[in-house]
Amino acid sequence: MVYLCVKLQIMLDQSTICAISTSPGMGAIAVIRLSGENAVFITNKLFRSPQKNKSLTAQKANTLHFGQVIYDNEVIDEVVVALFRAPHSFTGEDVVEISCHGSVYIQQKLLEILVESGARLARPGEFTQRAFLNGKMDLSQAEAVADVIASSNAAAHKLAVSQMRGGFSKEIGQLRDQLLHFTAMVELELDFAEEDVEFADRTELRKLAEKVEQLLRKLKNSFQLGNVIKNGIPVAIVGETNVGKSTLLNALLNEDKAIVSEIHGTTRDVIEDVVNIHGTAFRFFDTAGIRDTEDRIESLGIERTYHKLIEASIVLLVVDTENPCEVVSRRIEKIRKRMADEQQLIIVANKIDSGKTETIESLKKVKLADNENLVFMAAKEKRNLEELISRMTQAINISNVEKEDIIVTNARHYEILKSAHEATVRILNGLDSGLSGDFLSQDIRECLHYLGEITGEISTDEVLGHIFKNFCIGK
Amino acid sequence: MVYLCVKLQIMLDQSTICAISTSPGMGAIAVIRLSGENAVFITNKLFRSPQKNKSLTAQKANTLHFGQVIYDNEVIDEVVVALFRAPHSFTGEDVVEISCHGSVYIQQKLLEILVESGARLARPGEFTQRAFLNGKMDLSQAEAVADVIASSNAAAHKLAVSQMRGGFSKEIGQLRDQLLHFTAMVELELDFAEEDVEFADRTELRKLAEKVEQLLRKLKNSFQLGNVIKNGIPVAIVGETNVGKSTLLNALLNEDKAIVSEIHGTTRDVIEDVVNIHGTAFRFFDTAGIRDTEDRIESLGIERTYHKLIEASIVLLVVDTENPCEVVSRRIEKIRKRMADEQQLIIVANKIDSGKTETIESLKKVKLADNENLVFMAAKEKRNLEELISRMTQAINISNVEKEDIIVTNARHYEILKSAHEATVRILNGLDSGLSGDFLSQDIRECLHYLGEITGEISTDEVLGHIFKNFCIGK
Repeated sequence: MVYLCVKLQIMLDQSTICAISTSPGMGAIAVIRLSGENAVFITNKLFRSPQKNKSLTAQKANTLHFGQVIYDNEVIDEVVVALFRAPHSFTGEDVVEISCHGSVYIQQKLLEILVESGARLARPGEFTQRAFLNGKMDLSQAEAVADVIASSNAAAHKLAVSQMRGGFSKEIGQLRDQLLHFTAMVELELDFAEEDVEFADRTELRKLAEKVEQLLRKLKNSFQLGNVIKNGIPVAIVGETNVGKSTLLNALLNEDKAIVSEIHGTTRDVIEDVVNIHGTAFRFFDTAGIRDTEDRIESLGIERTYHKLIEASIVLLVVDTENPCEVVSRRIEKIRKRMADEQQLIIVANKIDSGKTETIESLKKVKLADNENLVFMAAKEKRNLEELISRMTQAINISNVEKEDIIVTNARHYEILKSAHEATVRILNGLDSGLSGDFLSQDIRECLHYLGEITGEISTDEVLGHIFKNFCIGK
Repeated sequence: MVYLCVKLQIMLDQSTICAISTSPGMGAIAVIRLSGENAVFITNKLFRSPQKNKSLTAQKANTLHFGQVIYDNEVIDEVVVALFRAPHSFTGEDVVEISCHGSVYIQQKLLEILVESGARLARPGEFTQRAFLNGKMDLSQAEAVADVIASSNAAAHKLAVSQMRGGFSKEIGQLRDQLLHFTAMVELELDFAEEDVEFADRTELRKLAEKVEQLLRKLKNSFQLGNVIKNGIPVAIVGETNVGKSTLLNALLNEDKAIVSEIHGTTRDVIEDVVNIHGTAFRFFDTAGIRDTEDRIESLGIERTYHKLIEASIVLLVVDTENPCEVVSRRIEKIRKRMADEQQLIIVANKIDSGKTETIESLKKVKLADNENLVFMAAKEKRNLEELISRMTQAINISNVEKEDIIVTNARHYEILKSAHEATVRILNGLDSGLSGDFLSQDIRECLHYLGEITGEISTDEVLGHIFKNFCIGK
């Protein structure tokens, strides 16, 4: 009586859907995608090849066809049509991709006449949803497709591609196998309950449960890092106003080889800069105004700034070596007191070109804890900027983490893993307290259920709707 | 000794170029295009098919191939590669189009590794330029490609597509044929100059020259309309501040089914709204503040507003039927005096729900000239808005014009046509004053030269550079 996964059958919509799949706006070309059993038929109605009698419906899969789109006896555009046939397509259905000239007008017009001709506009993520429903990928892979598209730095991209290719699913699959073995044992006992036998060796079971619990905990805990990789490592730059904080930030921003964007905090009015440095995204946030003050109102503001430090994975404390060493030491001590163990503190001793020898010497003697680093810099001249960057990259140690394990980046997966983990903890407690097989079995089933939700073996319209509504249209 | 067109040979760059051809930014998918003799070879270096041994270089033209892009032992993305082979491609060279996931990171990364692998980044319009240099299209067709991409309304799109398909080139070709016939006659005479014969019947020549002159004039004059179609029909809304001018503008803006954009005038500080209504672009411009005033400064401002009316093809004069009929009549007369014959005046008698019966009745009796129209409206309730729109569309009569003839939309063509037309006028004058054959021949050659510049039979690197630099990258 092995636990059987029930895949809730979701009615597959048979209609042919269409959408603009390329980025909105004007480009040299744009691609309009159709998927569904009438995709080729609908396109063929509008298509005229230079060889007049050519019918798209008679063409082979994976071929390209140049021609015109004609509607109402008018040439709308010259296009190239790409044909994919079920099941060898992204969605598993017949798929047509029309490459047209990238004017906004033409894109809209083509969509319009495709709809006139029998297709309907696709909902966000509907192509990927169909790929999932047609068994082309599991749910966590489908979700990774959206992450791949949204990835804006090397690390996030790497994680998303690995997940799209099934890395995470494999991990989850192994967990499920172990749990299924576990439940098989326990439920066999239940079948023979009256005979009071114990097929499942409780010590063995405990070992297995511990292993599962560890794995789930590791996956669950990887989310914080995953989140950081996906959204950028939060870095706070602190220090008084004259120490060169903004010069340092500008120098770092200039290192950006790809994207600089501003995120306006939703609840706070803080402007954040996300910068890719050597393939890693850092999210710098502004923490103005830490300085010694007697003013009560200002002190409150500074307290708020300290409070924000909690959100940072890395704190860059900029100190001015032109200041006397007592001032610098006092500043360092103040910030150290505020740091948590898992946070990284990098002391940036700035203006070394013009700094006091005494201050620089005393800084060289500062004892650094494991989560602390010290870099001597001249931010204005970008001296030692590369060193700072490499310290920042090392501090978060992303390159190591990546190679090792699966990292959870998806909030939905995290929530599910948390619940699954809780269930395994209950199993362990149950084993400790000699809980009967049927209660144990219930917790295991729950855990299996949760894991099934990640890969989509167990899913509902509602869950799917929620997942795919955040996709972009055309995917 | 027929005049021979010299096509200046422009060295064709043999390198393989690459660019992102879809609109910049994030989309479900993006397309990266390569063109050149190594396009397939370079792509193949990075490509791994699920059937490991498949080589792209061995694949047929016009086929699609799913696989991974691998660089540095890392999977960059899962892609679909489209293969086109010379000469049956857009550029006439081997072309590869890589459809990748549309993240900005992946797009940049793929470009990067293509460049690493031997391609170089394409300049704006370089794909189309190659198509021209490889004889896939003439220069006016190549220019139309950019117009097709930029077209944002039905009329402009129609003109651009017709031009891309060679409509304009055909017209120019016919003109050239006639001129060549002409020049053949005249130059034959020159060969026998000492014998003092006249092969070319001067009356026949005159007829031909007149025909050519008429055609050139028509083409040249079509530019104003072409420009209007391309950039939107300039519409001025005038009237006093309380008559419902801005309500009317808002009602019209809401009719927009596609694009509303604001153009900030470069020299004047006027904000313009471009709106597509039923496929025609209208460019509304703000002309605030026409009213009776004794204030000298204000009068100057109003004078400026009147002055701007000259730019409008259509003037919407909004009058308030709540006003006494004398006031309304005076206003209409004032504007009428300012109108040119080729401008269309539409009097919008607004607020008919609450208007004075006497005023409305008197308006009904107003005698309208050919270029005048009257629409009774309640702009706030959008009553009769459709009627106003249809009057506006009729006023400019675009639908008729489109079907008839070739319309010049390109400023370069316009300038060339102007010069060519001037040359034909000189030919006509020369014929009138009995100018000798060699002088006539010179003017004809000049005219032929100009026409050759339009289609690119005569072109220089400089001209080409100028034309293609305004293209978007990737086309």
